[in-house]
Amino acid sequence: MARNLDKLESMVGYHFLDSRLLDRALTHRSFSAFNNERLEFLGDSVLGVIVSAILYRLYTDSEEGELTRMRAQVVKKDTLAQIARRLQLGDHLKLGGSAAKGGGTENDSILADALESLIGAVYLDAGLEQAQITVEAVFEEELSAIDPGRTAKDPKTELQELLQSKGLLLPKYKVESISGSSHEPDFVVSCYVEDNQLVQTGTGSSRKSAEQAAAKKLLLILR
Amino acid sequence: MARNLDKLESMVGYHFLDSRLLDRALTHRSFSAFNNERLEFLGDSVLGVIVSAILYRLYTDSEEGELTRMRAQVVKKDTLAQIARRLQLGDHLKLGGSAAKGGGTENDSILADALESLIGAVYLDAGLEQAQITVEAVFEEELSAIDPGRTAKDPKTELQELLQSKGLLLPKYKVESISGSSHEPDFVVSCYVEDNQLVQTGTGSSRKSAEQAAAKKLLLILR
Repeated sequence: MARNLDKLESMVGYHFLDSRLLDRALTHRSFSAFNNERLEFLGDSVLGVIVSAILYRLYTDSEEGELTRMRAQVVKKDTLAQIARRLQLGDHLKLGGSAAKGGGTENDSILADALESLIGAVYLDAGLEQAQITVEAVFEEELSAIDPGRTAKDPKTELQELLQSKGLLLPKYKVESISGSSHEPDFVVSCYVEDNQLVQTGTGSSRKSAEQAAAKKLLLILR
Repeated sequence: MARNLDKLESMVGYHFLDSRLLDRALTHRSFSAFNNERLEFLGDSVLGVIVSAILYRLYTDSEEGELTRMRAQVVKKDTLAQIARRLQLGDHLKLGGSAAKGGGTENDSILADALESLIGAVYLDAGLEQAQITVEAVFEEELSAIDPGRTAKDPKTELQELLQSKGLLLPKYKVESISGSSHEPDFVVSCYVEDNQLVQTGTGSSRKSAEQAAAKKLLLILR
């Protein structure tokens, strides 16, 4: 098969010694048992330590909690998918079955996983130093957009801190329903505060995202 | 102050170029604003990538989920505290206030955090390669005890997989109550399966641990 991986390597700024690693990083589990899932496991950790070290050295006044929030902003799925789109990773993915038919090259999770796999592949091909150079180049825009003062806390954290500052009890979350398939569930979660006097309901594709949506609604009311 | 850090350095197998880094790694937030929290942020990531890479290379037949479970077993708080005790880290900690009076040198969280901080300090002092040598030495026992076939899945994962294999709906978890202080909460969580026909309740110091306890009880019944 003649995929033009040279173009991708130019965009990433790294030419692989072992091109099978790059091929593997671009292979989704729907295509083959020889897919990128193990590379993703590794790449996730490699990306984590690189971003942690950059933030640690750059923001010497930021406390642990702020560093953690900044890191989460850089490595979250949305950000990774955005970078993967900029690199046009989707054009080079190997997908099979329903993922190939169902617009998998535009799927945030598939794109984010492939980018993590790519970082894992660079690490295996050339070591941590090269992986760091690659991450710094590819994440340049996202890393320079970080502003420690403005890093938003997630709504659940904000809600908890707001309640604690007022001496109130912690919020309670309750899963009201789970519909959809086990593969693509829809969660409805209620968030209760002040001994159930205030309730808001949120929805999402995971319990956590539904909880965040409910917490966000409550924050709007409590402020 | 004359702490005999030479002994600790011998046990860790690394002599610091910049001994202030080691001192910082051993300083709990109760003692000073110049404490180990930022080093812990960094060390957690450093340990993560080192253990991930070791497992990736060692267990070439293990899938991502198994690698993730094995890693969790090595880097979990219990394991880290156990290693910290072996290194007698507690003897060298700087603690203040209630942590000093309340047996902080025997506290699992404080010990685990100090070990992560120490790994972060080695990384800053001498780079990833030295941090890897140190982790391999210090975690030798725990790393060689790992058996991919026997890595236990957590009860929630096991319960979900069991229900899916039987074509049943996913379990629902509901927080029944949160008592205690916001600092030391007690969670009571119910787990419902088969459209609420089966219910078990678990308790724990976090929602997650209470959910795991409830899932464990249901597993015992369903098997």
